[in-house]
Amino acid sequence: MRLSPAITELIQALRLLPGVGPKSAQRMAFQILERQREGGLRLAAALTEAVEKVGHCEVCRTLTEDAVCGICAQPKRRDSGLLCIVETPADVLAIEQTGYYQGCYFVLMGHLSPLDGIGPDDIGLDILAKRLREEPVQEVILATNPTVEGEATAHFIADLAHRQRIATSRIAHGVPVGGELEYVDQATLGHAFSGRKVIDMN
Amino acid sequence: MRLSPAITELIQALRLLPGVGPKSAQRMAFQILERQREGGLRLAAALTEAVEKVGHCEVCRTLTEDAVCGICAQPKRRDSGLLCIVETPADVLAIEQTGYYQGCYFVLMGHLSPLDGIGPDDIGLDILAKRLREEPVQEVILATNPTVEGEATAHFIADLAHRQRIATSRIAHGVPVGGELEYVDQATLGHAFSGRKVIDMN
Repeated sequence: MRLSPAITELIQALRLLPGVGPKSAQRMAFQILERQREGGLRLAAALTEAVEKVGHCEVCRTLTEDAVCGICAQPKRRDSGLLCIVETPADVLAIEQTGYYQGCYFVLMGHLSPLDGIGPDDIGLDILAKRLREEPVQEVILATNPTVEGEATAHFIADLAHRQRIATSRIAHGVPVGGELEYVDQATLGHAFSGRKVIDMN
Repeated sequence: MRLSPAITELIQALRLLPGVGPKSAQRMAFQILERQREGGLRLAAALTEAVEKVGHCEVCRTLTEDAVCGICAQPKRRDSGLLCIVETPADVLAIEQTGYYQGCYFVLMGHLSPLDGIGPDDIGLDILAKRLREEPVQEVILATNPTVEGEATAHFIADLAHRQRIATSRIAHGVPVGGELEYVDQATLGHAFSGRKVIDMN
Protein backbone atom coordinates (compact mmCIF):
# COMPACT_ATOMS: atom_id res chain seq x y z
CA MET A 1 0.00 0.00 0.00
CA ARG A 2 1.24 3.44 -0.84
CA LEU A 3 0.26 6.05 1.72
CA SER A 4 -1.07 9.25 0.20
CA PRO A 5 1.71 11.73 -0.74
CA ALA A 6 0.87 14.27 2.00
CA ILE A 7 1.14 11.60 4.73
CA THR A 8 4.36 10.20 3.24
CA GLU A 9 5.92 13.66 3.13
CA LEU A 10 4.86 14.34 6.73
CA ILE A 11 6.49 11.07 7.88
CA GLN A 12 9.68 11.91 5.96
CA ALA A 13 9.79 15.42 7.42
CA LEU A 14 9.28 14.12 10.97
CA ARG A 15 12.27 11.80 10.54
CA LEU A 16 14.51 14.88 10.42
CA LEU A 17 13.93 15.30 14.16
CA PRO A 18 16.71 13.81 16.30
CA GLY A 19 15.90 10.38 17.72
CA VAL A 20 12.90 9.83 15.44
CA GLY A 21 13.07 6.68 13.31
CA PRO A 22 10.58 5.39 10.71
CA LYS A 23 8.21 3.77 13.22
CA SER A 24 8.10 6.80 15.55
CA ALA A 25 7.62 9.17 12.62
CA GLN A 26 4.70 7.08 11.38
CA ARG A 27 3.16 6.99 14.86
CA MET A 28 3.55 10.76 15.20
CA ALA A 29 2.01 11.43 11.79
CA PHE A 30 -1.01 9.21 12.48
CA GLN A 31 -1.46 10.68 15.95
CA ILE A 32 -1.46 14.22 14.55
CA LEU A 33 -3.90 13.35 11.75
CA GLU A 34 -6.20 11.22 13.90
CA ARG A 35 -6.31 13.19 17.12
CA GLN A 36 -4.18 16.33 17.15
CA ARG A 37 -4.86 18.36 14.06
CA GLU A 38 -4.90 21.62 16.01
CA GLY A 39 -1.65 20.63 17.70
CA GLY A 40 -0.18 19.92 14.26
CA LEU A 41 -1.04 23.39 13.02
CA ARG A 42 0.29 24.90 16.25
CA LEU A 43 3.59 23.04 15.76
CA ALA A 44 3.77 24.20 12.11
CA ALA A 45 3.27 27.82 13.21
CA ALA A 46 5.81 27.50 16.04
CA LEU A 47 8.41 26.01 13.67
CA THR A 48 7.95 28.73 11.08
CA GLU A 49 8.03 31.49 13.67
CA ALA A 50 11.11 30.11 15.46
CA VAL A 51 13.07 29.47 12.25
CA GLU A 52 12.27 32.93 10.93
CA LYS A 53 12.76 34.94 14.12
CA VAL A 54 15.42 33.19 16.17
CA GLY A 55 18.97 34.28 15.44
CA HIS A 56 22.15 34.59 17.47
CA CYS A 57 22.85 36.98 20.34
CA GLU A 58 25.28 39.66 19.15
CA VAL A 59 27.28 39.36 22.35
CA CYS A 60 27.39 35.66 23.30
CA ARG A 61 26.14 33.91 20.12
CA THR A 62 23.42 31.90 21.88
CA LEU A 63 20.05 31.41 20.19
CA THR A 64 17.60 34.26 20.80
CA GLU A 65 15.04 36.27 18.89
CA ASP A 66 16.36 39.56 20.28
CA ALA A 67 19.56 41.28 19.19
CA VAL A 68 21.03 40.68 22.66
CA CYS A 69 19.91 37.68 24.74
CA GLY A 70 18.24 37.86 28.16
CA ILE A 71 21.46 37.03 30.00
CA CYS A 72 23.80 39.43 28.18
CA ALA A 73 21.21 42.20 28.65
CA GLN A 74 21.62 42.07 32.46
CA PRO A 75 24.25 44.67 33.55
CA LYS A 76 24.77 42.72 36.82
CA ARG A 77 26.00 39.72 34.86
CA ARG A 78 28.23 41.68 32.50
CA ASP A 79 29.77 43.46 35.49
CA SER A 80 30.60 40.14 37.16
CA GLY A 81 33.76 39.79 35.07
CA LEU A 82 33.07 36.04 34.67
CA LEU A 83 32.85 34.53 31.20
CA CYS A 84 31.84 30.89 30.80
CA ILE A 85 32.62 29.22 27.46
CA VAL A 86 30.20 26.49 26.38
CA GLU A 87 29.60 24.57 23.16
CA THR A 88 25.83 24.90 22.73
CA PRO A 89 22.78 26.90 23.89
CA ALA A 90 21.56 23.71 25.63
CA ASP A 91 24.69 23.89 27.82
CA VAL A 92 23.76 27.45 28.83
CA LEU A 93 20.33 26.22 29.85
CA ALA A 94 21.80 23.31 31.84
CA ILE A 95 24.16 25.63 33.74
CA GLU A 96 21.43 28.22 34.33
CA GLN A 97 19.22 25.51 35.83
CA THR A 98 21.85 24.82 38.52
CA GLY A 99 21.51 28.41 39.76
CA TYR A 100 25.22 28.40 40.76
CA TYR A 101 26.58 30.72 38.10
CA GLN A 102 25.81 34.43 37.77
CA GLY A 103 28.22 35.52 35.06
CA CYS A 104 28.09 35.79 31.27
CA TYR A 105 28.45 33.13 28.60
CA PHE A 106 30.07 32.72 25.24
CA VAL A 107 28.51 30.02 23.08
CA LEU A 108 30.82 28.44 20.51
CA MET A 109 27.98 26.66 18.66
CA GLY A 110 30.32 23.70 18.18
CA HIS A 111 33.94 22.82 18.86
CA LEU A 112 37.24 22.86 16.98
CA SER A 113 37.32 19.93 14.59
CA PRO A 114 40.05 20.27 11.95
CA LEU A 115 39.04 16.99 10.26
CA ASP A 116 35.57 18.44 9.57
CA GLY A 117 37.11 21.75 8.48
CA ILE A 118 35.91 23.60 11.58
CA GLY A 119 38.56 26.11 12.59
CA PRO A 120 38.72 28.89 15.20
CA ASP A 121 36.73 31.44 13.18
CA ASP A 122 33.88 28.94 12.58
CA ILE A 123 33.22 28.74 16.32
CA GLY A 124 33.49 32.50 16.83
CA LEU A 125 36.92 32.57 18.44
CA ASP A 126 37.73 35.79 16.54
CA ILE A 127 34.74 37.44 18.26
CA LEU A 128 35.81 35.92 21.59
CA ALA A 129 39.40 37.19 21.20
CA LYS A 130 38.08 40.70 20.50
CA ARG A 131 35.85 40.48 23.55
CA LEU A 132 38.74 39.35 25.76
CA ARG A 133 40.82 42.30 24.52
CA GLU A 134 38.15 44.95 24.90
CA GLU A 135 36.08 43.91 27.91
CA PRO A 136 37.20 43.74 31.54
CA VAL A 137 36.94 39.94 31.82
CA GLN A 138 38.50 38.69 35.07
CA GLU A 139 38.07 34.94 34.66
CA VAL A 140 37.35 32.66 31.74
CA ILE A 141 35.62 29.43 32.84
CA LEU A 142 35.99 26.66 30.28
CA ALA A 143 32.89 24.45 30.25
CA THR A 144 33.30 22.71 26.89
CA ASN A 145 32.43 19.01 26.84
CA PRO A 146 34.99 16.55 28.27
CA THR A 147 35.59 14.99 24.83
CA VAL A 148 38.76 15.05 22.74
CA GLU A 149 37.43 17.97 20.66
CA GLY A 150 36.06 19.77 23.71
CA GLU A 151 39.40 19.48 25.52
CA ALA A 152 41.32 20.71 22.45
CA THR A 153 38.95 23.66 22.13
CA ALA A 154 39.34 24.45 25.86
CA HIS A 155 43.15 24.33 25.49
CA PHE A 156 43.02 26.69 22.49
CA ILE A 157 40.84 29.21 24.36
CA ALA A 158 43.00 28.96 27.52
CA ASP A 159 45.90 29.99 25.30
CA LEU A 160 43.91 32.97 23.94
CA ALA A 161 43.02 34.10 27.47
CA HIS A 162 46.56 33.57 28.74
CA ARG A 163 47.87 36.01 26.12
CA GLN A 164 45.51 38.67 27.55
CA ARG A 165 46.68 37.71 31.08
CA ILE A 166 43.17 36.63 32.05
CA ALA A 167 42.77 33.92 34.70
CA THR A 168 41.38 30.72 33.21
CA SER A 169 39.71 27.73 34.84
CA ARG A 170 38.24 24.42 33.67
CA ILE A 171 35.10 23.00 35.29
CA ALA A 172 35.88 20.05 37.54
CA HIS A 173 35.62 16.48 36.29
CA GLY A 174 34.99 13.72 38.76
CA VAL A 175 32.47 11.28 40.14
CA PRO A 176 28.87 12.47 39.51
CA VAL A 177 26.94 13.32 42.66
CA GLY A 178 24.68 10.39 43.53
CA GLY A 179 26.76 8.04 41.34
CA GLU A 180 28.40 4.88 42.61
CA LEU A 181 32.16 4.44 42.25
CA GLU A 182 31.69 0.93 40.94
CA TYR A 183 29.92 2.20 37.81
CA VAL A 184 32.10 5.22 37.06
CA ASP A 185 34.42 4.86 34.05
CA GLN A 186 38.20 4.78 34.49
CA ALA A 187 38.92 8.18 32.94
CA THR A 188 36.41 9.91 35.21
CA LEU A 189 37.74 8.10 38.28
CA GLY A 190 41.27 9.10 37.28
CA HIS A 191 40.14 12.74 37.05
CA ALA A 192 38.43 12.40 40.43
CA PHE A 193 41.73 11.30 42.00
CA SER A 194 43.98 13.85 40.31
CA GLY A 195 41.49 16.61 41.17
CA ARG A 196 41.04 15.55 44.81
CA LYS A 197 40.56 18.32 47.39
CA VAL A 198 42.17 18.63 50.79
CA ILE A 199 39.59 18.45 53.56
CA ASP A 200 40.09 21.39 55.83
CA MET A 201 39.15 20.33 59.37
CA ASN A 202 39.36 23.85 60.81
CA MET B 1 17.28 31.82 32.40
CA ARG B 2 14.15 32.34 30.40
CA LEU B 3 14.45 31.10 26.83
CA SER B 4 13.10 33.51 24.24
CA PRO B 5 9.32 33.13 23.68
CA ALA B 6 9.65 31.67 20.16
CA ILE B 7 11.97 28.89 21.39
CA THR B 8 9.74 28.19 24.42
CA GLU B 9 6.67 27.92 22.21
CA LEU B 10 8.52 25.59 19.81
CA ILE B 11 9.52 23.31 22.70
CA GLN B 12 5.94 23.29 24.04
CA ALA B 13 4.52 22.51 20.58
CA LEU B 14 7.01 19.66 20.04
CA ARG B 15 5.87 18.07 23.32
CA LEU B 16 2.49 17.39 21.70
CA LEU B 17 4.17 14.66 19.65
CA PRO B 18 3.76 11.17 21.13
CA GLY B 19 6.80 9.96 23.07
CA VAL B 20 8.41 13.39 23.26
CA GLY B 21 9.16 14.65 26.78
CA PRO B 22 10.65 17.96 27.90
CA LYS B 23 14.30 16.94 27.30
CA SER B 24 13.66 15.48 23.85
CA ALA B 25 11.58 18.51 22.85
CA GLN B 26 14.39 20.83 23.91
CA ARG B 27 16.95 18.76 22.01
CA MET B 28 14.73 18.78 18.90
CA ALA B 29 14.19 22.54 19.08
CA PHE B 30 17.90 23.29 19.45
CA GLN B 31 18.81 20.86 16.67
CA ILE B 32 16.35 22.50 14.29
CA LEU B 33 17.52 26.03 15.16
CA GLU B 34 21.22 25.19 15.16
CA ARG B 35 21.50 22.86 12.21
CA GLN B 36 18.24 22.11 10.44
CA ARG B 37 16.42 25.33 9.72
CA GLU B 38 15.47 24.17 6.22
CA GLY B 39 14.25 20.88 7.67
CA GLY B 40 12.19 22.84 10.19
CA LEU B 41 10.47 24.83 7.46
CA ARG B 42 9.93 21.63 5.46
CA LEU B 43 8.30 20.01 8.52
CA ALA B 44 6.10 23.07 9.06
CA ALA B 45 4.93 22.95 5.42
CA ALA B 46 4.34 19.17 5.57
CA LEU B 47 2.29 19.54 8.78
CA THR B 48 0.13 22.32 7.35
CA GLU B 49 -0.41 20.49 4.07
CA ALA B 50 -1.23 17.15 5.72
CA VAL B 51 -3.61 18.65 8.30
CA GLU B 52 -5.41 20.67 5.63
CA LYS B 53 -5.59 18.03 2.89
CA VAL B 54 -5.82 14.64 4.58
CA GLY B 55 -9.33 13.45 5.35
CA HIS B 56 -11.05 10.08 5.51
CA CYS B 57 -11.72 7.65 2.66
CA GLU B 58 -15.45 7.67 1.84
CA VAL B 59 -15.50 3.89 1.62
CA CYS B 60 -13.21 2.55 4.35
CA ARG B 61 -12.61 5.61 6.58
CA THR B 62 -8.79 5.37 6.51
CA LEU B 63 -6.70 8.55 6.27
CA THR B 64 -6.18 9.77 2.71
CA GLU B 65 -6.12 13.02 0.78
CA ASP B 66 -8.31 11.60 -1.98
CA ALA B 67 -12.06 10.99 -1.74
CA VAL B 68 -11.45 7.23 -2.04
CA CYS B 69 -8.16 5.72 -0.82
CA GLY B 70 -5.65 3.83 -2.96
CA ILE B 71 -6.86 0.43 -1.74
CA CYS B 72 -10.62 0.99 -2.12
CA ALA B 73 -10.00 2.39 -5.61
CA GLN B 74 -8.70 -1.00 -6.85
CA PRO B 75 -11.60 -2.98 -8.44
CA LYS B 76 -9.62 -6.24 -7.89
CA ARG B 77 -9.71 -5.71 -4.15
CA ARG B 78 -13.37 -4.71 -4.00
CA ASP B 79 -14.27 -7.78 -6.06
CA SER B 80 -12.42 -10.07 -3.63
CA GLY B 81 -15.42 -10.10 -1.28
CA LEU B 82 -13.05 -9.93 1.74
CA LEU B 83 -13.47 -7.14 4.28
CA CYS B 84 -10.91 -6.76 7.07
CA ILE B 85 -11.95 -4.67 10.08
CA VAL B 86 -9.09 -2.80 11.86
CA GLU B 87 -8.93 -0.09 14.50
CA THR B 88 -6.48 2.38 12.92
CA PRO B 89 -4.83 3.37 9.60
CA ALA B 90 -1.52 2.15 11.10
CA ASP B 91 -3.04 -1.33 11.29
CA VAL B 92 -3.88 -1.18 7.57
CA LEU B 93 -0.25 -0.30 6.87
CA ALA B 94 1.02 -3.16 9.05
CA ILE B 95 -1.23 -5.69 7.30
CA GLU B 96 -0.35 -4.34 3.85
CA GLN B 97 3.34 -4.74 4.63
CA THR B 98 2.86 -8.49 5.16
CA GLY B 99 1.67 -8.84 1.57
CA TYR B 100 -0.68 -11.69 2.62
CA TYR B 101 -3.99 -9.92 2.27
CA GLN B 102 -5.54 -8.73 -0.99
CA GLY B 103 -9.02 -7.65 0.13
CA CYS B 104 -10.59 -4.43 1.34
CA TYR B 105 -10.50 -2.76 4.76
CA PHE B 106 -12.83 -0.94 7.06
CA VAL B 107 -11.08 1.33 9.56
CA LEU B 108 -12.99 1.97 12.80
CA MET B 109 -10.66 4.81 13.91
CA GLY B 110 -10.99 3.52 17.46
CA HIS B 111 -12.94 0.85 19.33
CA LEU B 112 -16.15 0.60 21.32
CA SER B 113 -15.61 2.13 24.75
CA PRO B 114 -18.89 2.86 26.56
CA LEU B 115 -17.05 4.36 29.56
CA ASP B 116 -15.52 7.03 27.29
CA GLY B 117 -18.87 7.54 25.57
CA ILE B 118 -17.74 5.89 22.33
CA GLY B 119 -20.65 3.94 20.87
CA PRO B 120 -21.22 2.07 17.58
CA ASP B 121 -21.93 5.19 15.48
CA ASP B 122 -18.72 6.90 16.71
CA ILE B 123 -16.61 4.15 15.13
CA GLY B 124 -18.63 4.10 11.91
CA LEU B 125 -20.56 0.90 12.53
CA ASP B 126 -23.66 2.47 10.94
CA ILE B 127 -21.64 2.90 7.72
CA LEU B 128 -20.28 -0.64 8.07
CA ALA B 129 -23.78 -2.10 8.57
CA LYS B 130 -24.97 -0.33 5.41
CA ARG B 131 -21.96 -1.67 3.53
CA LEU B 132 -22.61 -5.22 4.71
CA ARG B 133 -26.25 -4.92 3.56
CA GLU B 134 -25.53 -3.42 0.16
CA GLU B 135 -22.23 -4.91 -0.96
CA PRO B 136 -21.51 -8.55 -1.82
CA VAL B 137 -19.15 -9.16 1.13
CA GLN B 138 -18.34 -12.86 1.49
CA GLU B 139 -16.16 -12.81 4.60
CA VAL B 140 -15.57 -10.30 7.38
CA ILE B 141 -12.12 -10.71 8.95
CA LEU B 142 -11.93 -9.16 12.42
CA ALA B 143 -8.46 -7.74 13.05
CA THR B 144 -9.18 -5.45 15.99
CA ASN B 145 -6.57 -5.44 18.77
CA PRO B 146 -6.55 -8.37 21.23
CA THR B 147 -7.54 -6.07 24.12
CA VAL B 148 -10.76 -6.06 26.13
CA GLU B 149 -12.18 -3.22 24.02
CA GLY B 150 -10.91 -4.72 20.77
CA GLU B 151 -12.51 -8.10 21.60
CA ALA B 152 -15.82 -6.44 22.54
CA THR B 153 -15.77 -4.48 19.28
CA ALA B 154 -15.00 -7.66 17.31
CA HIS B 155 -17.89 -9.44 19.03
CA PHE B 156 -20.27 -6.58 18.21
CA ILE B 157 -19.28 -6.61 14.53
CA ALA B 158 -19.46 -10.42 14.32
CA ASP B 159 -23.07 -10.04 15.46
CA LEU B 160 -23.74 -7.43 12.74
CA ALA B 161 -22.28 -9.70 10.06
CA HIS B 162 -24.12 -12.75 11.38
CA ARG B 163 -27.45 -10.96 10.90
CA GLN B 164 -26.56 -10.51 7.19
CA ARG B 165 -25.49 -14.19 7.05
CA ILE B 166 -21.92 -13.21 6.21
CA ALA B 167 -19.09 -15.55 7.25
CA THR B 168 -16.93 -13.99 9.96
CA SER B 169 -13.42 -14.86 11.16
CA ARG B 170 -11.03 -13.53 13.79
CA ILE B 171 -7.28 -13.32 13.12
CA ALA B 172 -5.36 -16.05 14.98
CA HIS B 173 -3.78 -15.36 18.35
CA GLY B 174 -0.79 -17.41 19.42
CA VAL B 175 2.94 -17.50 19.90
CA PRO B 176 4.70 -14.84 17.77
CA VAL B 177 6.95 -16.26 15.06
CA GLY B 178 10.56 -16.14 16.27
CA GLY B 179 9.40 -15.79 19.88
CA GLU B 180 10.41 -18.14 22.67
CA LEU B 181 7.72 -19.98 24.63
CA GLU B 182 9.44 -19.10 27.89
CA TYR B 183 8.79 -15.39 27.37
CA VAL B 184 5.24 -15.57 26.00
CA ASP B 185 2.52 -14.41 28.41
CA GLN B 186 -0.06 -16.85 29.77
CA ALA B 187 -3.06 -15.50 27.85
CA THR B 188 -1.22 -15.77 24.53
CA LEU B 189 0.02 -19.27 25.34
CA GLY B 190 -3.53 -20.24 26.30
CA HIS B 191 -4.75 -18.96 22.91
CA ALA B 192 -1.95 -20.87 21.20
CA PHE B 193 -3.16 -24.11 22.78
CA SER B 194 -6.88 -23.61 22.21
CA GLY B 195 -6.19 -22.59 18.59
CA ARG B 196 -3.79 -25.50 17.86
CA LYS B 197 -3.87 -27.03 14.38
CA VAL B 198 -3.87 -30.67 13.41
CA ILE B 199 -0.74 -31.59 11.47
CA ASP B 200 -1.76 -33.38 8.33
CA MET B 201 0.94 -35.93 7.46
CA ASN B 202 -0.50 -36.78 4.03
